Amino acid sequence: MIKYQDSHLPHVIQTQQFELPTLFDSIFPLADHIRLETGKNEYLKGTRMISWFEEPSTRTQVSFSMAMSLLGGEVSFSTENASQFSSRAKGESISDTIKILNGYHADLLVGRFAKAGDAAKAATVSNIPIINAGDGNNQHPTQALLDLYTIFRKFGRIDSIKIALVGDLNNGRTIKSLAYMLGKFSNIRLYFVSPLSMRIGDDIKMYLDKHEISWDEYDDLGNIASEADVIYMTRIQTERGSVLTDDELTPGRFSISQKTLDIMQPGAIIMHPLPRQQEIPEYVDSDPRAHYFVQAENGLYVRMALLLMILRPAIGPMIMKQLKR
Amino acid sequence: MIKYQDSHLPHVIQTQQFELPTLFDSIFPLADHIRLETGKNEYLKGTRMISWFEEPSTRTQVSFSMAMSLLGGEVSFSTENASQFSSRAKGESISDTIKILNGYHADLLVGRFAKAGDAAKAATVSNIPIINAGDGNNQHPTQALLDLYTIFRKFGRIDSIKIALVGDLNNGRTIKSLAYMLGKFSNIRLYFVSPLSMRIGDDIKMYLDKHEISWDEYDDLGNIASEADVIYMTRIQTERGSVLTDDELTPGRFSISQKTLDIMQPGAIIMHPLPRQQEIPEYVDSDPRAHYFVQAENGLYVRMALLLMILRPAIGPMIMKQLKR
Amino acid sequence: MIKYQDSHLPHVIQTQQFELPTLFDSIFPLADHIRLETGKNEYLKGTRMISWFEEPSTRTQVSFSMAMSLLGGEVSFSTENASQFSSRAKGESISDTIKILNGYHADLLVGRFAKAGDAAKAATVSNIPIINAGDGNNQHPTQALLDLYTIFRKFGRIDSIKIALVGDLNNGRTIKSLAYMLGKFSNIRLYFVSPLSMRIGDDIKMYLDKHEISWDEYDDLGNIASEADVIYMTRIQTERGSVLTDDELTPGRFSISQKTLDIMQPGAIIMHPLPRQQEIPEYVDSDPRAHYFVQAENGLYVRMALLLMILRPAIGPMIMKQLKR
Repeated sequence: MIKYQDSHLPHVIQTQQFELPTLFDSIFPLADHIRLETGKNEYLKGTRMISWFEEPSTRTQVSFSMAMSLLGGEVSFSTENASQFSSRAKGESISDTIKILNGYHADLLVGRFAKAGDAAKAATVSNIPIINAGDGNNQHPTQALLDLYTIFRKFGRIDSIKIALVGDLNNGRTIKSLAYMLGKFSNIRLYFVSPLSMRIGDDIKMYLDKHEISWDEYDDLGNIASEADVIYMTRIQTERGSVLTDDELTPGRFSISQKTLDIMQPGAIIMHPLPRQQEIPEYVDSDPRAHYFVQAENGLYVRMALLLMILRPAIGPMIMKQLKR
Repeated sequence: MIKYQDSHLPHVIQTQQFELPTLFDSIFPLADHIRLETGKNEYLKGTRMISWFEEPSTRTQVSFSMAMSLLGGEVSFSTENASQFSSRAKGESISDTIKILNGYHADLLVGRFAKAGDAAKAATVSNIPIINAGDGNNQHPTQALLDLYTIFRKFGRIDSIKIALVGDLNNGRTIKSLAYMLGKFSNIRLYFVSPLSMRIGDDIKMYLDKHEISWDEYDDLGNIASEADVIYMTRIQTERGSVLTDDELTPGRFSISQKTLDIMQPGAIIMHPLPRQQEIPEYVDSDPRAHYFVQAENGLYVRMALLLMILRPAIGPMIMKQLKR
Repeated sequence: MIKYQDSHLPHVIQTQQFELPTLFDSIFPLADHIRLETGKNEYLKGTRMISWFEEPSTRTQVSFSMAMSLLGGEVSFSTENASQFSSRAKGESISDTIKILNGYHADLLVGRFAKAGDAAKAATVSNIPIINAGDGNNQHPTQALLDLYTIFRKFGRIDSIKIALVGDLNNGRTIKSLAYMLGKFSNIRLYFVSPLSMRIGDDIKMYLDKHEISWDEYDDLGNIASEADVIYMTRIQTERGSVLTDDELTPGRFSISQKTLDIMQPGAIIMHPLPRQQEIPEYVDSDPRAHYFVQAENGLYVRMALLLMILRPAIGPMIMKQLKR
C-alpha cells in the first residue's frame, strides 16, 4: 500500500513515494473516519513504537505519541534529543543505530534524523517500518500529507487549487515536501512569495516544470492574495540566518494584514506549519479562514491513519468496507 | 468542585482557588483513602495525560507520572525541557502551544511553565484541564496542597497552627503558595526566619494582614524553635544569587542543629520541600520529628486525589460515601 | 536468587554478586526461553519501573524500557539526563533522591549513576530493587551478563574460553565488569591487547591472579588473533583523553583488519559493546564471526530475564519446570 523503493516494508521516507490512490482511497478516508469517530479504540493494542528524535521537535513527537496512544498502542521508548544523548554523539553511524534498535523487537520506529538522507539510510537496513519525521533539510513527509489532507477537507479536491507559498522558501523541509507532492496533481497554480534572499530552490522549480505545474515568483503577498485558494504562510527562520529588512517587514507583504483579509476570497484559507511569529498577527485567529490550528490537529488524524495502515494493514480496508455500506 | 475563575473546567492554577471544604471534604479524605488502600486500581483507565515541563523539575514530574500510572491512566507524552526542546524555543506564545496541544485529544495537561502567569494564560485558552506544576516564581499550588495535607495528617487540623518558615523566603513559589493558602485558616501564627536579604515579600505581608494572620520576622531560628508546631525549612537558592555570610551559617540560626532538636516541642515536625542542602544535616533524619520524606510521599497521594477529582469526578464522591458507611 | 550483600532485596549492583548457578540455572535458560518464545506475554502486567538515568545512555535505557514493555510492565517515568535536569543538579545526595523516589510506589528502579559507588549507596537505602545500569567508571553488571550469555550461546560453555580484550582497557566499566565475572570460571585464558597508555588496571590483574586466571599483555592483536575464541573489541574513549598514535592505528594492531579475519579461527567470534568507531570496519559485518549485533540483541533477553526474576520470582522456576518436561 505504502511502498518505499523496493523494500517489502511500508516505510514512510519521502513525499514522492505516495501515489494518489493511496491518499484518496486510504489515508484521507481513514483520517476522516478516525476524526469523526467518537470513542477511542484499541486497534493497535500490543504494538510498540520507538520514538527516536535526534533533534528536538516536540510538536511532531507529541502528535505521533498521542496518535499511538489513542489507537491503543504503546510508545515503549521516547528520546527527545538523541544526537546529544545517545551513542550517535559518540560517532555511531545511522546504520549501526538502526541495526541495534532493530534487535529490541519494537514494531515501528518514528525517527527525526539530524542529517538529510539518514531516513532513507535507516530504511535500507531496518527490518521494522521507519516513519521519517523529518531528516535534516530534506523531507518531512507526514507534514506534507497533513497539509494536503487539510486542503482536501476544505475543498474536496486538490486538483486545480491555487496556492500561495509565502515567506522563507529556501530553508524548509515543509515547503520542499509539499511542492514535490503537488507535482502529482493537475492544474495546480503556485505563487511563490518571498524576499529575494529566500527564494525557493532551483531543484524544486525544475521538478515543477517537469511535472507541468504552473508557478510564478512574487515579492508581495498583496499582489496575489485575492487570487489564491490557500495562503500557506511560513516562519522566517532567523536561526538559519534569514532576516527581513524594514521594507520587507511591511504588514501584508510577507505577512497577513487586515488588508490581506479584506482582499482574500471568502472561501480561501490561511495555513501555517507553526510555530508562527509576526507573519500572522493574533487577531487573524478569529477570522473563519484561519486554518492553522485545524491543520495542526489534522496532523494527529493523518498520523493515526498511517500508523494503522502500517501496523495493522487489514483494519483500514475493513473500515473502508463498512463505511461504504 | 475545583473551580478556577469562571472556567467550566477544573483547572488547578493557584492556591487561592481552593476553598476549605474542597480540602477537608474531598482532597484530604481522598488522599487518605488512596494512601491506605493496599491494591492498585484502574480508576483512570482510558485517560491520557500530557506532561509538559518547560523547565526540568524531575521530582514533581515523576510524582505526577507515577500518580497517573498508579491510577491506571496513561502519560501519553512527557517532555522534560520544553523551553529548550520545543517550538517554545522558537518564540511560540503559550496560547499557541496550548491550542495546538489541545488538538491532540489528551484528557489533561500537567505543565511547568517558565514564565510567571503562563499557567493562567494556558487555562484561558485550553479546552482540557490544566494543572499548574509551577509557573516561574509565581505559584506551585500542588506543593501547597501537599504541605497542608502533611500538617493536617499530623495535627488533625490546620487552624491554630504555629509555623516557622525558615531560609530563603523571597525566592520561592513554595513559600508564596503556602502563605496564600494559610490566609484561609484562622488563628494561624507565622514566624518568618530569614537573613535580611531574603525576607518575604511585601505582597505576602499585605495579604496576611488583610486576612488577619499574625506574623513576625526573626533572624535566628533559635528564638522561636521552641514555640513552633511546624518548622518549615527551605533551601538557600544560590542559583538565584542568594548567599549566606559566615555568621548566618551558624548552625541552628537558619538551619537545624542538635540544639534546635533539643528545644523543639516533642510533637512538632520539621518539613522541607526538598532538595535540601546544609540546612538539615543528615543526622536529623533519624529524629521522629523529621517529616520531609513523608511530606514528599504525601505529594503522590494529593496528586492522585486531584487527578481523580478532575478526570473522574464521579468516583471521589462514591468513595466518600462508601467510607462513611 | 540474586543476592546483593545482606539486603533482602534482589538488587543488581555489581558483577561479582552473581554465583554461577544463578547464571546457568536461571538467567541463561530464562533468556533462552524468552528469545525463542514467539508471542509476547503479560508476565509483568501491573508492575512499574522508574528509569532514572543521571547521564545519557540511550542504548542501555531503550533496551531496559523495551524489556519492560515486552513483558507487559510499564515504564512509569523515564529521565534521560537527571544529573542536569533533576534536583541532583541542586546538590541532592543519592540517598535523598532514592528515599524520595521510594515514596512513589514504583516496583523497581533502573539507574545509571554519574558517580562510582552510587549504585551501592542507592541499594543501601532503597526499599525497592535497584538495577545498576552503570555507575561512573565502576561497574555495568548487565553488560557483563549479556557478554557472558553471548559467549555461552555460541560455545555452550564459558570455562576454558580464550578471550582477547582489545583496545582502551583502562577506561571502561565494561571490561572491568567482565573481567571480574570471568574470575569465577576455570581455565580461562585472557589476552589484554592495548596501547601502553591504555593498559588494564592493577586492581583487575591482582584480582585475576588471586582467582588463578591466566593473563598476558600484548601490543598487537595480530600476535594472538589466531588463538582466541573471542576477540572482544572496545572503542578508544577519545572523550576521556585516549588517543592512538599513527603507529597504533595500523590496521589489525588494535583493530580488525582483513588479515585478522584471515588468521582467526573459523569458530571464533568478534564482540564489541558498541558504539564502534574505526576499530571494526563495516566490511567485517558480513563475516559470520561478527557477533556484536547479536550481542546487543542478547542484552534485551538478559534484561528481560532479570526483570522477570526480580519482579515475579515465581514465574522463572515455573517456566524452567515446564521446559524440563
